[in-house]
Amino acid sequence: MTIPTPLTGVVPPVCTPLTPDREVDVPSLIRLVDHLVAGGVDALFVLGSTSEAAYLTDEQRRLVTETVVGHVAGQVPVLAGAIDMTTPRVLDHVRAVTAAGAQAVVATAPFYTGTHPAEIARHYRLLAAHSPVPVLAYDIPAAVHTKLPTDVVLELAADRVVVGLKDSSGDLAGFRAVVTGVRAVTDFTVLTGSELLIDAALAMGADGAVPGLSNVDPVGYVRLDRLCRAGDWDRARAEQERLCALFGMIGVGGARMGGTASAIGAFKAALRLRGVIACAATAEPQVPLSEDEVERVGKYLAAAGLS
Amino acid sequence: MTIPTPLTGVVPPVCTPLTPDREVDVPSLIRLVDHLVAGGVDALFVLGSTSEAAYLTDEQRRLVTETVVGHVAGQVPVLAGAIDMTTPRVLDHVRAVTAAGAQAVVATAPFYTGTHPAEIARHYRLLAAHSPVPVLAYDIPAAVHTKLPTDVVLELAADRVVVGLKDSSGDLAGFRAVVTGVRAVTDFTVLTGSELLIDAALAMGADGAVPGLSNVDPVGYVRLDRLCRAGDWDRARAEQERLCALFGMIGVGGARMGGTASAIGAFKAALRLRGVIACAATAEPQVPLSEDEVERVGKYLAAAGLS
Amino acid sequence: MTIPTPLTGVVPPVCTPLTPDREVDVPSLIRLVDHLVAGGVDALFVLGSTSEAAYLTDEQRRLVTETVVGHVAGQVPVLAGAIDMTTPRVLDHVRAVTAAGAQAVVATAPFYTGTHPAEIARHYRLLAAHSPVPVLAYDIPAAVHTKLPTDVVLELAADRVVVGLKDSSGDLAGFRAVVTGVRAVTDFTVLTGSELLIDAALAMGADGAVPGLSNVDPVGYVRLDRLCRAGDWDRARAEQERLCALFGMIGVGGARMGGTASAIGAFKAALRLRGVIACAATAEPQVPLSEDEVERVGKYLAAAGLS
Amino acid sequence: MTIPTPLTGVVPPVCTPLTPDREVDVPSLIRLVDHLVAGGVDALFVLGSTSEAAYLTDEQRRLVTETVVGHVAGQVPVLAGAIDMTTPRVLDHVRAVTAAGAQAVVATAPFYTGTHPAEIARHYRLLAAHSPVPVLAYDIPAAVHTKLPTDVVLELAADRVVVGLKDSSGDLAGFRAVVTGVRAVTDFTVLTGSELLIDAALAMGADGAVPGLSNVDPVGYVRLDRLCRAGDWDRARAEQERLCALFGMIGVGGARMGGTASAIGAFKAALRLRGVIACAATAEPQVPLSEDEVERVGKYLAAAGLS
Repeated sequence: MTIPTPLTGVVPPVCTPLTPDREVDVPSLIRLVDHLVAGGVDALFVLGSTSEAAYLTDEQRRLVTETVVGHVAGQVPVLAGAIDMTTPRVLDHVRAVTAAGAQAVVATAPFYTGTHPAEIARHYRLLAAHSPVPVLAYDIPAAVHTKLPTDVVLELAADRVVVGLKDSSGDLAGFRAVVTGVRAVTDFTVLTGSELLIDAALAMGADGAVPGLSNVDPVGYVRLDRLCRAGDWDRARAEQERLCALFGMIGVGGARMGGTASAIGAFKAALRLRGVIACAATAEPQVPLSEDEVERVGKYLAAAGLS
Repeated sequence: MTIPTPLTGVVPPVCTPLTPDREVDVPSLIRLVDHLVAGGVDALFVLGSTSEAAYLTDEQRRLVTETVVGHVAGQVPVLAGAIDMTTPRVLDHVRAVTAAGAQAVVATAPFYTGTHPAEIARHYRLLAAHSPVPVLAYDIPAAVHTKLPTDVVLELAADRVVVGLKDSSGDLAGFRAVVTGVRAVTDFTVLTGSELLIDAALAMGADGAVPGLSNVDPVGYVRLDRLCRAGDWDRARAEQERLCALFGMIGVGGARMGGTASAIGAFKAALRLRGVIACAATAEPQVPLSEDEVERVGKYLAAAGLS
Repeated sequence: MTIPTPLTGVVPPVCTPLTPDREVDVPSLIRLVDHLVAGGVDALFVLGSTSEAAYLTDEQRRLVTETVVGHVAGQVPVLAGAIDMTTPRVLDHVRAVTAAGAQAVVATAPFYTGTHPAEIARHYRLLAAHSPVPVLAYDIPAAVHTKLPTDVVLELAADRVVVGLKDSSGDLAGFRAVVTGVRAVTDFTVLTGSELLIDAALAMGADGAVPGLSNVDPVGYVRLDRLCRAGDWDRARAEQERLCALFGMIGVGGARMGGTASAIGAFKAALRLRGVIACAATAEPQVPLSEDEVERVGKYLAAAGLS
Repeated sequence: MTIPTPLTGVVPPVCTPLTPDREVDVPSLIRLVDHLVAGGVDALFVLGSTSEAAYLTDEQRRLVTETVVGHVAGQVPVLAGAIDMTTPRVLDHVRAVTAAGAQAVVATAPFYTGTHPAEIARHYRLLAAHSPVPVLAYDIPAAVHTKLPTDVVLELAADRVVVGLKDSSGDLAGFRAVVTGVRAVTDFTVLTGSELLIDAALAMGADGAVPGLSNVDPVGYVRLDRLCRAGDWDRARAEQERLCALFGMIGVGGARMGGTASAIGAFKAALRLRGVIACAATAEPQVPLSEDEVERVGKYLAAAGLS
């Protein structure tokens, strides 16, 4: 199975349910996959930031990919993150996730180490040369502290080095420069990672979205995507605003934990409250949500009509 | 073998020589270890940032640690970096490097993901609980984009969670706060990672230094350390200034590559020019130095009396 | 004359033409005002960032405000920036620009000095208490290195402390949170400062835009605004993309000068090429554009149908 | 009167006492000057960051400079900050402070607006060309968000454009590069702005220091300076550590106000507790210290032997 080019629609970055002792909770993961596929999503993205890829051991990453690829059984394509610091280490993950059946890999710019546009381009060219499946670039400066330069993305797209971009930069003007700049590259996929600006991104010409919150409400995000494709912008805006309000849940942890712990903790708490996963534990060393904070997550669900 | 407490003196972060096809060059690595031990260094630190740990695969990391531990055979202690994003992944590296014989591990704050002082403390407490050898904290905000908070370091020191700190923050005022704050914890080790401020750090009361440039000139750094310990501050300053001038080599790559590529490229070029290693290749995707740039490295060596 | 509430449409941040010896070029300024008003703009904003307010002396600021207010003679409202570091200094500018006839003032968060959400709120409350005209908040983190917190903006809006927001943050998700959050405050104005995302901002519910590039092509921006208001999103997108391409001119100065020098230099060069102003000089110490760079500006104009 | 070249010793950045209604408290300012001169300081620096220059109106700045210059009457040199965004505005302040009698001016890189090394150099060259008194460069990236590039400082020093550097960057390695780089320029002054690293800076060869905390304890800082000059490094370190502990007062405001409000608030509270100034008010919009926080300032004084 190969991914469509371009890949369109809603591609949830699949949360990784954990047991109370922080092992991958395979039955919950399978229920989550069913929940997403039943919600109408167009593909799945495992081992992304929302999947806590940064926290999963290599063995856990393998288990997640095999589980999801095996269970989804071709109903929708499965993309996998290959999140690591530099080319040689990312290539080891590319080998692992493709051996486990991923149909495309998603890789960031180098991080931890200092980098440079010439090195970023070289990084992707090496990844593409050695990957058995297509490579998408993942622009996530909040994590890697480097913004993928627009001209580098356009050069890699024109040369068919990368087949797509997942943009989690929050910089919609830069995103637009890619969307318009790759219009001649007809099979290039541009996905936004923002939960909050999907109507705007699709209106500009983006192909789809990778919203972490679609774990919680896949039906809502699929509805939003379809409204946008139908050009029904007023109803799309209303649906987007409902989802923006729901996204407020990511702040429940407040100042007593990191932003990731609060956001992922809220998504998992919501999934548990909705009966999809068995346990809302996040990986170490994240601070867990308190009962009060989980209760506030429940209120966000109720306000969005999801209780 | 265990590490001394405190660990004092010069602890080079050992470069990882590579072959032209980017495999670990074991004979060169052994020659480099001999060069450092012969230079009088007090311990070795493998798999740090200067070692290109961010670029080495798990297999290469294992090979490096085993090679160095095996060859050094107890002449000096060997510390190993366990550089990865979060607790579960770092713990896998802790297992690997201690299996390979490292006598202490060095770990940063979580990176890639958002973090928080409470999560940083939890991270180190979990590492210490599961590590068979002592843990040192590695403060390197340029890489992980979080500064270890002074109060967290002092709390972890007082509780004997971490046995030392390697400070590569460049913030000498914060460093001083740790040096004075841990004075009551008599067996705690404070090491500066700066090539340029070792006299100042030792004058404040630091225990030692982890200068990347000591790969190139171990004798110079050992001399500097001994002058400081003798209270011969004028000659120490002169030696430090000679080494500061030598450190200028890290800029030879200029604006056409990343800072890491230029610095590590220069160290390796210098080691090749000095006849220690066989090949100056840096790991992918770093841009290599040109012949002209290598020639400029040679001039830095000559100016420092090392040709 | 008072400003409409909300203020809608296109509000150019008026460039400040200078003579070759860097005095305000009053005849050129008057021609520029005529060019903008004839282009159909809805209000004028003097002494903003695009106006080089940061470079103008107090005397020059006074001359600019008096000239524009006097010449525009009530055809459209005139807002004026009161750009300075803290409350007491901003209040001096508020007095000056309102004495010169400005109908509203626009002020940023404190800068140079460290600040805090509580101090930002206090800042605007003091400004509003002492200003004879309405105050708009100006969110420009690239200049002041603080993002106006959404909750502070919403609190100030609800309390009628500020009557509007000019958002030059580039953070469209945060912008959306304000747009939806102030919907109950019917007379509050939300303006985007982005040249590149006006269709998206208006689709979300913004009231108008303050695009620096509208100095060069006011007719285009007014057309874009009207298409959005008519719900003609396809033609709006095409017009927005034409303006995005034109905006590429801001990069002509490349790496040999600051981004402000390149952008303002390009706008002024374009205005001179279009025959609106007499001289394209930017204020000291900005590096001037070269002849080649000005020629490239001309090509951007031609490509956008403006030669 | 002219400033010595180089200027050596302790140069307090003089706090600006305010009345409860935020006017300059001239009698308190005069008492503060007497307190500093009696403490043995070598020069005074008015209108710096510690002086709340960012908060003072032009009229207040004039009053401060005239008051201090007039009262000090040549006992020590008086330097004045000319803190504003760009060259034309800074030049207006240069005119004002030199008219008021300042014997040298201190100016930062451009801020608010984007800048560039070429523009920073041009900025200082224009300032020097138009200033009737010598110009010192003020490196304060925490305020202006640009670090003065070492090569620019060395070029300006070699060309006698600026006669000195006040370094508040916190980057002691970069500071050292200037100290050693200007050694051939015998009349160039290098001052550190750090309260915490003066022994280290003087050991490297700096000429003097501009510590905000010397408002509170001028005698301590003068003692520290004299111990360093005498090469009595052990006693210097002990005195420096006493002052480091005293400096802890800057944190009393905690997370409920900006760092400037907390630090300046603490200095002023300490000056009031020591009987030097009448009122500890800080300028708007800074949050004032609470009674509890002031009490904690008193404990820092007591612990340092200053109650």
